[in-house]
Amino acid sequence: MRFAPDAFFDAALTALKDEGNYRRFADLERRCGAFPRAHHEGGQGDREVTVWCSNDYLGMGQHPAVLAAMRDALDTAGAGAGGTRNISGTTHAHVALEAELAELHGKAAALLFTSGYVANWSALGTLGARIPGLVILSDALNHASMIEGIRHSGAEKRIWAHNDLSDLERQLSALPDETPKLIAFESVYSMDGDIAPIAEICDLAERYGAMTYLDEVHAVGLYGARGGGVAEREGLMDRLTIIEGTLGKAFGVMGGYIAASAPLIDFVRSFASGFIFTTALPPAVAAGALASVCHLKTSTAEREAHAVRVATVRAGLDRLGIPHVDNPSHIVPVMVGDPLKCRYISDLLMAHHGIYIQPINYPTVPKGTERLRITPSPVHSETDVAALLDALGALWEQCQLARLPRAAQ
Amino acid sequence: MRFAPDAFFDAALTALKDEGNYRRFADLERRCGAFPRAHHEGGQGDREVTVWCSNDYLGMGQHPAVLAAMRDALDTAGAGAGGTRNISGTTHAHVALEAELAELHGKAAALLFTSGYVANWSALGTLGARIPGLVILSDALNHASMIEGIRHSGAEKRIWAHNDLSDLERQLSALPDETPKLIAFESVYSMDGDIAPIAEICDLAERYGAMTYLDEVHAVGLYGARGGGVAEREGLMDRLTIIEGTLGKAFGVMGGYIAASAPLIDFVRSFASGFIFTTALPPAVAAGALASVCHLKTSTAEREAHAVRVATVRAGLDRLGIPHVDNPSHIVPVMVGDPLKCRYISDLLMAHHGIYIQPINYPTVPKGTERLRITPSPVHSETDVAALLDALGALWEQCQLARLPRAAQ
Repeated sequence: MRFAPDAFFDAALTALKDEGNYRRFADLERRCGAFPRAHHEGGQGDREVTVWCSNDYLGMGQHPAVLAAMRDALDTAGAGAGGTRNISGTTHAHVALEAELAELHGKAAALLFTSGYVANWSALGTLGARIPGLVILSDALNHASMIEGIRHSGAEKRIWAHNDLSDLERQLSALPDETPKLIAFESVYSMDGDIAPIAEICDLAERYGAMTYLDEVHAVGLYGARGGGVAEREGLMDRLTIIEGTLGKAFGVMGGYIAASAPLIDFVRSFASGFIFTTALPPAVAAGALASVCHLKTSTAEREAHAVRVATVRAGLDRLGIPHVDNPSHIVPVMVGDPLKCRYISDLLMAHHGIYIQPINYPTVPKGTERLRITPSPVHSETDVAALLDALGALWEQCQLARLPRAAQ
Repeated sequence: MRFAPDAFFDAALTALKDEGNYRRFADLERRCGAFPRAHHEGGQGDREVTVWCSNDYLGMGQHPAVLAAMRDALDTAGAGAGGTRNISGTTHAHVALEAELAELHGKAAALLFTSGYVANWSALGTLGARIPGLVILSDALNHASMIEGIRHSGAEKRIWAHNDLSDLERQLSALPDETPKLIAFESVYSMDGDIAPIAEICDLAERYGAMTYLDEVHAVGLYGARGGGVAEREGLMDRLTIIEGTLGKAFGVMGGYIAASAPLIDFVRSFASGFIFTTALPPAVAAGALASVCHLKTSTAEREAHAVRVATVRAGLDRLGIPHVDNPSHIVPVMVGDPLKCRYISDLLMAHHGIYIQPINYPTVPKGTERLRITPSPVHSETDVAALLDALGALWEQCQLARLPRAAQ
């Protein structure tokens, strides 16, 4: 019997639905200037909701300087880049942004990609494929884009236990001294919000002669005196071989990049398929990102307000006894541990409280660790926080969800 | 001895330079409204050039309707999407654009990706990895993004000779009837400008029970009564399983997509790593692309003017006896056949004639087929064409390049 495509696809989707992991997208319209407010196009028509799960961590997506730069670039350069970086697609905005990102991370050069996903996939894929004998030592909880890039490269991969220095050292020490090695890891892990011991990883890298690849996508703009990430905050940027970041989260626009030595950047620029054979970012996107990076290099108000807001939400959850993962970052995961329940709470928050927190289910997190991932931002007001806590408190009551002992009031 | 990264990278780059394949990017600033004019930041400061190698084939990157839609979306929705499609990143603009693209191709559904590269890589990668036993029959000249997607999928791949129906049939007929099969190919091949025999490939697909995946990135917006591509022009859209396109070439903005049956689209949406784990396109980009697609569905003026301009350039080259590849598309490849000479001619065009045509060298084309790839557009004037032909004529004289017998004057 011949293969029947749609029947096959339907069966796979039914299986996904049965296990509670089928995804429905919330159709939103952000209101620029009013964010975290957005309009939600649900079953009952358009209604206003407060977004509590955005990765526009600082609200830079509505910052006047970013929008002005994008409008200017639209007016002067038009909509798209019209070509790959090599074939008519490089503009002043791309060149200036790469220089700014290199400077931000204290590196000689930087290279833009169309997304952070493509940056990870292309950079790791190219290094792994083109450095003969390279062994990539990959943290067990690295992002999908890093995993796919490493897998695609065909390089030998060794997975070390998450943030586990002794396991990393054990694996490094087992490799011959002359073997080229690359340690790939993140600073802030997106879903648990924990932070890697970067200094100690650099110590091991130096001891065993390994290159380091640090993904700072959930940290750039947010940490460090100028928004250079956790490595900047800890004075470690010069000890890292490659720093990877995104322009689509705290910087509020779109795109990804790596920063490193000039020869490394030129090498990836020259050999990475995912860089060479794709249309460049629109000049307006590059210009907006440049304005955002520049603003957050000098302005610390957003980072300070962000930290305050995160602390307020955590303290409120503690007062209510609502369990959340204790971590040193800005990500507040409220654990539910069941995909259907996670979806149900999310639906109730949207329907009854006008609060949008997407349920985070498999494959984004392991099965059994389903959660509501809350991302407080400087644009959330005290009133927004109070409304969030009231809603969660009411739902925890209504659904008889487990609580911890409540913190002192 | 330990691995020395920068020395390794430097050596690889030196090899690239020695063979003439090192790429230098032209730093441009397009002038919106004046395109194909741009400013080039070269060694001697800023000067105006005419771009003859853009993939903004119709000049839609400066179309007032596209720019107005992008400005409106910037004002209402802000800069970035702020999240993945699943986690707060889906907006009305994304949903509307997907509906419009599905309608354009006569399919039940469509799915947006951040680029055409990611669309090919993710869609082929997901189908190849997740359909047990799938054999992908891939045209020998498929784009890098398709090749990488197929390779990444781990599916069995059979390469058939470029546009060779008998080789395709030979390979199809050798596979068991029950084996799931997917024929992956393009309509317009980017570098040679030839067009696949789509109807005959569909005949074979139906005879042997194969799915079809057609990349129309160099055809959408340009061919067909409503810009649906070569498959629309030839009345074949309903016979294709998957049509893939880009929003970054004729549509003038950025992004990629696939259009197909609802179960297939929902399957890719649910399982494709490169779709799930990446920030959505900025709402303004989606809105601009939507305006462009809508405009080109009803306006045929751009397509008609485009065809006229292409014919004028070809006739002019024939009069001068300058060899170019004869093909049925809008792409005019002038063959040089040597990377250093190709770069030299391009440099002279820029330096002495204010004409920008990027030399196309390996790995974009096979070694020995280096070329100037000219892309005439409706925004090039008769005067622009005359200047281009004068410059090429003078250079062919100056450099003593081979000529064909000149066409009748």
